[in-house]
Amino acid sequence: MTLLYVSTAERAAAWQPIFAEAGEEMIVGEAAVTDPAAVTHLLCWTPPRDLGRYPNLKVVISAGAGVDQMPPLPPGVALSRTVAPGIEEMVRDWVLMACLMLHRSMPAYLEQAARGEWKTHHTQLAQGCRVGIMGMGRIGSLAARSLASLGFPVAGWSRSGRPVEGVEVFGSDQLDAMLARTDLLVCLLPLTPETRGLMNADFLGKLPRGARLVHAGRGAQLDMDALKAALDQGQISAAMLDVTEPEPLPQDHWAWADPRVIITPHVAAVTDYAEGARHVLEVIRATRAGTEIPGLVDQAKGY
Amino acid sequence: MTLLYVSTAERAAAWQPIFAEAGEEMIVGEAAVTDPAAVTHLLCWTPPRDLGRYPNLKVVISAGAGVDQMPPLPPGVALSRTVAPGIEEMVRDWVLMACLMLHRSMPAYLEQAARGEWKTHHTQLAQGCRVGIMGMGRIGSLAARSLASLGFPVAGWSRSGRPVEGVEVFGSDQLDAMLARTDLLVCLLPLTPETRGLMNADFLGKLPRGARLVHAGRGAQLDMDALKAALDQGQISAAMLDVTEPEPLPQDHWAWADPRVIITPHVAAVTDYAEGARHVLEVIRATRAGTEIPGLVDQAKGY
Repeated sequence: MTLLYVSTAERAAAWQPIFAEAGEEMIVGEAAVTDPAAVTHLLCWTPPRDLGRYPNLKVVISAGAGVDQMPPLPPGVALSRTVAPGIEEMVRDWVLMACLMLHRSMPAYLEQAARGEWKTHHTQLAQGCRVGIMGMGRIGSLAARSLASLGFPVAGWSRSGRPVEGVEVFGSDQLDAMLARTDLLVCLLPLTPETRGLMNADFLGKLPRGARLVHAGRGAQLDMDALKAALDQGQISAAMLDVTEPEPLPQDHWAWADPRVIITPHVAAVTDYAEGARHVLEVIRATRAGTEIPGLVDQAKGY
Repeated sequence: MTLLYVSTAERAAAWQPIFAEAGEEMIVGEAAVTDPAAVTHLLCWTPPRDLGRYPNLKVVISAGAGVDQMPPLPPGVALSRTVAPGIEEMVRDWVLMACLMLHRSMPAYLEQAARGEWKTHHTQLAQGCRVGIMGMGRIGSLAARSLASLGFPVAGWSRSGRPVEGVEVFGSDQLDAMLARTDLLVCLLPLTPETRGLMNADFLGKLPRGARLVHAGRGAQLDMDALKAALDQGQISAAMLDVTEPEPLPQDHWAWADPRVIITPHVAAVTDYAEGARHVLEVIRATRAGTEIPGLVDQAKGY
């Protein structure tokens, strides 16, 4: 088994000693490939154009947790997304922080602080702020559990409709019902044809007036112009975004300057180099052993 | 039993129907007192000068959770601080938010956002950020539990040294040892002669270089000049303050404009009117029944 590594040189330098110690083969960059038939695994963000060059390719591993950037793979090639221990908890922590910041009026307090103004706003108990989470995978479930433990009434929307303890779960055809009871909406959905552009004007209009939005899915799921209109109309009162369209968000974009919007530069999850390497080594070992590949993606569903 | 109410008219208006419904007597303002001997309970932030006027006064109830503003009371008069259900959880939520904001580099991201700059910073797992909490009463214990559930290694410093599950507890003479292992310090101490001015230059110098500070105790515990010097020296890298000295913080104070400092205007806890009234009614009922008074303060300790 040999890994072809097609990503940043900085990470490659960090990975090489880890692969050497594990006794696994790693080739950095396509130019260094002398025997394409030896390549069984490919680590990349987006793959080289001609994967047909590698007749024995078994698994493509996305360098990140997302796989929406991946084109269709040749038949028989599995897709794994990087799952690093702690990365899902890291997103959970960002979501928890963002929900608390919106619930506790941080956009207003930050704007006041810029003027040196000391003024308190009404504060509600967590019990009065109904959170709705779109995307009840592992991260969504972790976030739901933490938010519920603080007293927020939490609902989740998931394709599976699978029950989660302490969470009111709405199935795929019940999105409107969930939006109608949600004061603080959290998006953790993967980017798929169904979720692209999902959060448009019509969608935002289904939330109670003055609702707040936490977005840690993918930028292309949110119509930024619709968000601006909803903010101006008072339909949405504040938003916290870790993902935008495009990324990086241009310096002159309205959202940077809008006090109702807080933006972080796609940092809800940041994979540690060593943990990324460990994931790939586990994928290689699972391939060799014929056991389930960690982070395996259902390529039909897209996540 | 009769309550003498000495506080804001707005709250009095909200309380009167609640007292009427409960069948309890409430007099608003000293000027309305016709029979001082009937007054058994006093609700106030600071009491009227001459409490000797009320020979049958049994309990003074602080309008807030704090009692550091209270002068010594006449012998035999009990002191109760307002404990409203949810208020301790409300402070816990603010502390959790503040810890996450400092842990996840929000001061840097907010400063960048003001310039429209998209730049990621290294993100550590919660496991790598050792939190130390000064003040392990009910709020401190709640905060410790939530932070530990997210993976933060949590230590607590308390006079009692009473064990708290999942928390490394340091006793009263072990403060220096706790500071030495603390990357993110949380102050939840009550204001007493011992804690006034506690966080000075010497104190801040005992933390590891680059430590962060979350302050939800009382403003007078932190030397703001020492904080500024520690920030400028890199000894402290960021701070989030809900309390300041003085309050309100003057508009031209350096801390408002410093991007390393985030200030909220004493809003970690805000008592709901109805919950405040409910607490006072419970104090009155407990007095009548001879049971333990809710929120009873040990006046020798000051909390």
